[in-house]
This record gives sequence, structure tokens and C-alpha cells, in this order.
Amino acid sequence: MSDFPVTEKTQIKRGPKRACYDKEIIYPILDEALVCHVATEWQGQSMIQPTIHWRDGDYLYIHGSSKNGLFQALLQGQEAAICITLLDGLVFARSAFHHSVNYRSVIVYAKAELIEEEQEKRKQLDLMLEKVKEGRSKEARPANDNELKATSVLAFKLEEVSAKIRTGGPVDDPEDMALDVWAGVQPIQLQKGPLNLD
Amino acid sequence: MSDFPVTEKTQIKRGPKRACYDKEIIYPILDEALVCHVATEWQGQSMIQPTIHWRDGDYLYIHGSSKNGLFQALLQGQEAAICITLLDGLVFARSAFHHSVNYRSVIVYAKAELIEEEQEKRKQLDLMLEKVKEGRSKEARPANDNELKATSVLAFKLEEVSAKIRTGGPVDDPEDMALDVWAGVQPIQLQKGPLNLD
Repeated sequence: MSDFPVTEKTQIKRGPKRACYDKEIIYPILDEALVCHVATEWQGQSMIQPTIHWRDGDYLYIHGSSKNGLFQALLQGQEAAICITLLDGLVFARSAFHHSVNYRSVIVYAKAELIEEEQEKRKQLDLMLEKVKEGRSKEARPANDNELKATSVLAFKLEEVSAKIRTGGPVDDPEDMALDVWAGVQPIQLQKGPLNLD
Repeated sequence: MSDFPVTEKTQIKRGPKRACYDKEIIYPILDEALVCHVATEWQGQSMIQPTIHWRDGDYLYIHGSSKNGLFQALLQGQEAAICITLLDGLVFARSAFHHSVNYRSVIVYAKAELIEEEQEKRKQLDLMLEKVKEGRSKEARPANDNELKATSVLAFKLEEVSAKIRTGGPVDDPEDMALDVWAGVQPIQLQKGPLNLD
């Protein structure tokens, strides 16, 4: 797979060594994370919303009520800035300053395309269910026409995309290494618990 | 504690039954979540960044490099839309349409105030460390003047704030209750693992 091009918007200026434009690294981040944050602006007002996302090929998808306010702005042609963040660890350094977190985050800049064709819309909503639980799209009662009408599916072409990734242990200044302060990494991850049947 | 007032921006129009303006419910969400997403716009361009946040009284704080591009926009007076999201569970309904997630999310609209007074800046950076690990601000080597200068601390007064919360099991349509489809909730939470010492 090719890399994403570095554009004015996606060029990472702070901490460029943590920048990544590689689809082979970025797509698994999009696939692992359940929730993204979608930001846009409308008439000078910044808006932000969390929502489930999923990926199909070179597109990122979200869905929601057709009456969703942020969707209205996106469908008027406002560009979205979408952030997907996975927190992987707390990094404890010997100095307060070098404390950090391990993370993988992706930012996507794109305009929304409304999925209107019924079969494609059904396919994408199935893919969302499959992301949450494999096989679920074949178990649940499919959407009827009214339900399908009440749901909007938006697609964002993955073209202007960057990731920023930190891994590994603390990076202390050499003169701090002899300090009697413990240092290390505490891993952190999203854990699914046992299913509680209804 | 009093509730936050409902403003044009914070009024929740979709799913108003899930809206919450109660500080006693909202502040623990801000305190539990490690990461927020900060959005703003600059010259028509939407921007978004994930970052650690913390709270002290009626203010939310973030920190970062003094050269951070998004911080520059915020310090020019651009309002931030900040979202804090906790994912609590995957909700499996009998119908595809009624699948959902349990979550607690908060949105804050506010302009940034730069913390310039040294003692207050040190206090806030200590509070950040204490949030990540109690006692840590007394263990780590404190920031020196250069490190303090390289760090910007921004405060956001908590005035225009709303939460949206979903809890509980699936809500299926009555006519779907007899379907032979399992339904229930799978809890989900951020889990900290064992500390790996450096």
C-alpha cells in the first residue's frame, strides 16, 4: 500500500519523528478504535461529536440520525476534521516534564459524501455491526424502510490523513538518569467484559 | 452544586432524554476520562487534537508545547469545542436499528485562558500528574525554568457545558421482542495493566 501524501494540513510540525503516513499502520488504528471524534465548523461555530466509525477500503464511515445537526453542516460541504485516538500507556519519567503517554492517533480531513443508494447503505450498516461483533449483521433483524430512512450514512475518502504515534519507555535527560525516582510505562487498553444477556 | 444553564449551543436536540447539565454528574466524567478532544477553527479550517486534560474546580485544563498550532488559534481568541467521551458498553438489540452504545460524553464550549503566573502554572502541572498517579508530583523532578517556559497551560472556564449519557439495556420495538435474536450489553472499560519499570 502507498503512503498518504504529506499536505499542508497533515504535516506534523510538533514531534515530527512521531508522524506516520503509512496506510499499513494507519488502517489498523482506524479498525481497532471504536469511536472517533468528528469536528467541523458552521458559520464560525466549532462543533464536535463522538461517534462510532468503521472503514471499508479507502473510506471511513459514520452514521447517525438524518436530523443530526453536525451532519447537516457536513452535508452543506463543510470539511470534517476527524480524530481517532487509542491510548496505549502512561509513561512515567524521572522528571515531571518528560512524563508522556503512549498513543496512536489519526487525523482525517475530508468532506462527507452521503450514501444514498439503498444496497450500499445496507452494506455499510452491516459492516458497522460486523466491526462491533462478527456475524451480528446476519443475526439481527435488518432495518426496515423507515429505519433506513431515519439513518444517514456518511463516507469520507481517506486522502488527507496523518497519524502520530508514541511507543516505548520514558525518555529522560541524561543528567536525570541517576535520580532516585522510579520510571516506567503502565499499559492501558479498552477491555470488553462478559456479555450480559437481556 | 448548581446545574449548567442550557444555551443555544449546549441544548441537546437529538435524544434530549439523554441530556444532562448537572455538575455532580459531569465533573466525575471529566475526572475519570484521561483524554479529551479539542476542536477549533482557524481561518475557516477545522482543527482537532487529542490531549490529556484535568479539572480544578470550575476550570478544565490542558497543556502542551508553547508552539502547538492549535494552541496558537485558541490563544488568538478562537472558541474551543472540547469533547470528553467514556465508552461504557456495546448494546446489542434484536433489531439492527436499535443497536447502540452506552457512553458518557461531555462537550465544553469555552475560550482559552493562558496560565502565566508561575506558581499557578506549577500547581496545575502538579494536578495533572496527580490525576495520572496520586503522589507522582512529589516524586518526579520538578520542571526547571526552561521546561516550564516550553510548556503552555490553558484553562477553560466550565460555563457552557452539556453531557449526553446512555445507560441500560437494549430498547427494542415491542413487535421485535419475540424474535429469536439474543440481545444484551457488553461492558467496556479502560483497563490499566501492571507497571513496567524502566
